[in-house]
Amino acid sequence: MTARICLALMILISTNAFAQAIPQDVKDQAAALRDAAMLGSVAYEVVESLTMEVGPRSAGSAGDAAAVKWGVEKLTSLGFKNVHTDEVEVPHWDRGTLDARIKTPYPQQMVATSLGGSAGTPHEGIEADVVRVESLAELRELNSEQVAGRIAYVDHVMERLKTGGGYKTASRIRSCGHVIAAERGALATVIRSAGTSSHRVAHTGSMRANDMPGIIPAIALANSDADILTYAIESGEPVRFRLQSTARDLPRAMSANVVGEVPGVGDLADEVVILAAHLDSWDLGTGAIDDGAGIAIITAAAKLILDTGDSPRRTIRVVFYANEEFGLSGAKQYSLDHEGSIEKHVIGMEADFGPGRVWKFSSRVAEDSLDIIDELYTLLEPIGVEERGDNEAGGGADLTPLRKAGMPVFGFSQDGSYYFDYHHTADDTLDKISRDDLNQNVAAYVTATYVAANIERDFGRLPVDESERTCAAEFD
Amino acid sequence: MTARICLALMILISTNAFAQAIPQDVKDQAAALRDAAMLGSVAYEVVESLTMEVGPRSAGSAGDAAAVKWGVEKLTSLGFKNVHTDEVEVPHWDRGTLDARIKTPYPQQMVATSLGGSAGTPHEGIEADVVRVESLAELRELNSEQVAGRIAYVDHVMERLKTGGGYKTASRIRSCGHVIAAERGALATVIRSAGTSSHRVAHTGSMRANDMPGIIPAIALANSDADILTYAIESGEPVRFRLQSTARDLPRAMSANVVGEVPGVGDLADEVVILAAHLDSWDLGTGAIDDGAGIAIITAAAKLILDTGDSPRRTIRVVFYANEEFGLSGAKQYSLDHEGSIEKHVIGMEADFGPGRVWKFSSRVAEDSLDIIDELYTLLEPIGVEERGDNEAGGGADLTPLRKAGMPVFGFSQDGSYYFDYHHTADDTLDKISRDDLNQNVAAYVTATYVAANIERDFGRLPVDESERTCAAEFD
Repeated sequence: MTARICLALMILISTNAFAQAIPQDVKDQAAALRDAAMLGSVAYEVVESLTMEVGPRSAGSAGDAAAVKWGVEKLTSLGFKNVHTDEVEVPHWDRGTLDARIKTPYPQQMVATSLGGSAGTPHEGIEADVVRVESLAELRELNSEQVAGRIAYVDHVMERLKTGGGYKTASRIRSCGHVIAAERGALATVIRSAGTSSHRVAHTGSMRANDMPGIIPAIALANSDADILTYAIESGEPVRFRLQSTARDLPRAMSANVVGEVPGVGDLADEVVILAAHLDSWDLGTGAIDDGAGIAIITAAAKLILDTGDSPRRTIRVVFYANEEFGLSGAKQYSLDHEGSIEKHVIGMEADFGPGRVWKFSSRVAEDSLDIIDELYTLLEPIGVEERGDNEAGGGADLTPLRKAGMPVFGFSQDGSYYFDYHHTADDTLDKISRDDLNQNVAAYVTATYVAANIERDFGRLPVDESERTCAAEFD
Repeated sequence: MTARICLALMILISTNAFAQAIPQDVKDQAAALRDAAMLGSVAYEVVESLTMEVGPRSAGSAGDAAAVKWGVEKLTSLGFKNVHTDEVEVPHWDRGTLDARIKTPYPQQMVATSLGGSAGTPHEGIEADVVRVESLAELRELNSEQVAGRIAYVDHVMERLKTGGGYKTASRIRSCGHVIAAERGALATVIRSAGTSSHRVAHTGSMRANDMPGIIPAIALANSDADILTYAIESGEPVRFRLQSTARDLPRAMSANVVGEVPGVGDLADEVVILAAHLDSWDLGTGAIDDGAGIAIITAAAKLILDTGDSPRRTIRVVFYANEEFGLSGAKQYSLDHEGSIEKHVIGMEADFGPGRVWKFSSRVAEDSLDIIDELYTLLEPIGVEERGDNEAGGGADLTPLRKAGMPVFGFSQDGSYYFDYHHTADDTLDKISRDDLNQNVAAYVTATYVAANIERDFGRLPVDESERTCAAEFD
């Protein structure tokens, strides 16, 4: 055999191997579903129904219970199979009321909101001088003498990025600022909202405490109000700040993961392609972008496959997770409930970044499955997925326990330029969602779901990951 | 004299007449001031100081008193002459608290605000069925049987226009909807906000009552919340709505018009060029665009002339009016205070439409003064004032009494595309203002002010107008 023939053979083999990662008939059907999704789906109607008929649905609230009921009815009426709930115990924190204001030198009422898990104040409130820093690093450099008996104000302006990447620093301040402040004797923490909104809405979100109760009261100011506080501090006069909050923990409550399936048929039917989104929302908005959009995207994607009338080879499982926002209760419970069948979850994908268009497709799969990802990506390119990402996808918060246990994940990066204008604020309402953007997401999810559920090969397993996120770890 | 020579003479005469409407030296100095203003002025610092150090300042409130003090100090420190206050009695309405929610079929808390002058509800609140209309005309077509004992919901979506013209219909609903509803026995009025914001902020503003107290409770829903209510109504189920409000009238209070001057020198020194803006704001925002921007524009324009060191021929009078928002108290008082010298007010100009760029210059002057306006317009064209308007300018709310008494006015039409996203909402904060836009306004005002204060000719008088705006008149 000459070198030339050898080379030709190698090209032929590699080309064949490439062509066979996803069989042509699967590709054709995936493309047809993708194109149908671009023209329309039930996505918008799903998020409209959830936000208008249920609205806010924070863990343990009446809205949470209403959402579970809604989820069962919606999946049932859409024709999903094996629709059921799996009970989940959730924390039940109540925001109560908040009054926050600058007392001197320039008295002004603040638009502010308590952070999720915040303690309330004594009935008479807390009034103290303010010490301002711009980062957690700066806060850590302060000693007790500089902080004790004062209100610690972390004034970090979140960066607007297409990736949403500015949220990493901003949310760490929200999650962990209170720990550093409390260690130094602060009476309360005030942060600039971990969001990019220039509107008069403050941004909530959980304080990480790894099941510790919130130690001190912690609130976020709307960006415009942080501007006012910063101006007062820059005047050079001592700034007195007052807050009064009735935030508190209530007894833990019962909620549920809501599940529906498009059952697989045949030898791979016990394997699961899991589509995840979370049913809970924060209490300030109606949870349209977080995560009504995700609920809508995964439901509409699975519904398109259901409506073909042809059963997939693997079971497609849609899971509306309970309480993502305040501790991933549903995600943790799901792993407990499926302890014996974790390895049957061949791939997971989660929609939890609003309705922005998918512009990058990444993965975290076994190395020898990357040819499938490459080929799948070619199916996504025509709908504007312009970038092939790496193999380091996170996979979404609710899928974290499954991913850490070895389940591969897909990652759909959505345009997050405006997501943090609305996220976790009262502004998270239906009017922020475009039908067309939602349908492009559905198109991406249905393509990936159809392929994953119908090819012979799977995506291998990931190494087990036993790391834990804590505030202490964040500072190292 | 041949016909040819005659024509040449006529052209010469008409050209001369045109050239002489504004003397060249006045034009040159006006242009220099205009160009200086484009490069910078005290405008931004003025609105920053007012919004950050005083903040909300609704008539009769502590903020109102603080604003009067601020105004005197600011005009004094900037070097204005004859700085003083003229006392004005103002109504003092207190918004109190408001809880508004849909009870059935889909319980949801509403983001809403009481309209200025609204009555409160009984302590236990008002709960009733909702009858929805899309216009005042439609509401007028309903009879008592259809409205009595119910809550009237006027669901008009305000149009976004560069002129801000969509506010005409929307604000009429806010001003007068309660009158029609009350006549038919409604328990309360709910309107969709008279604004274009897609954010979770509701729009307040006065209910017209010609000094009648608000008859029934009246509230506005944020646009997103109006969407929720409309969705509930369109479900076909009966909609129960509940509101509970502690809005109330307090005893009338004292405020003041704040005045500062650049005194004229010479034979025309007793004539006044009046620059108007209002010092009060609604209570929800910090009054940056309404009307901190106006205060900043007129102050900065007059300050530029003051800083030349050359006295104008006419006196330039800057007036920060008290309580424009809730009944034009300051404007009415000014006319009483200056009853004997109304005719000395040769021209008025008011800035009360935020910081949007001036794109049209119009007037309301005596016909034989229009050549001055034409020539003045040529001085404004270079800064982007692209349209020469008509001679029907309104002149601004605070100048209404003077205009009706015969004072000519200038009209600077600003770009209002986004004004009603913020106007009368909590979102009216400093971050909505661009320095450059503000400076372009200052440039327009300083040009017009300098010319009006320094030319020999005046603008004549307007016919006296004794019409009165009432809700009854609106419906005819």
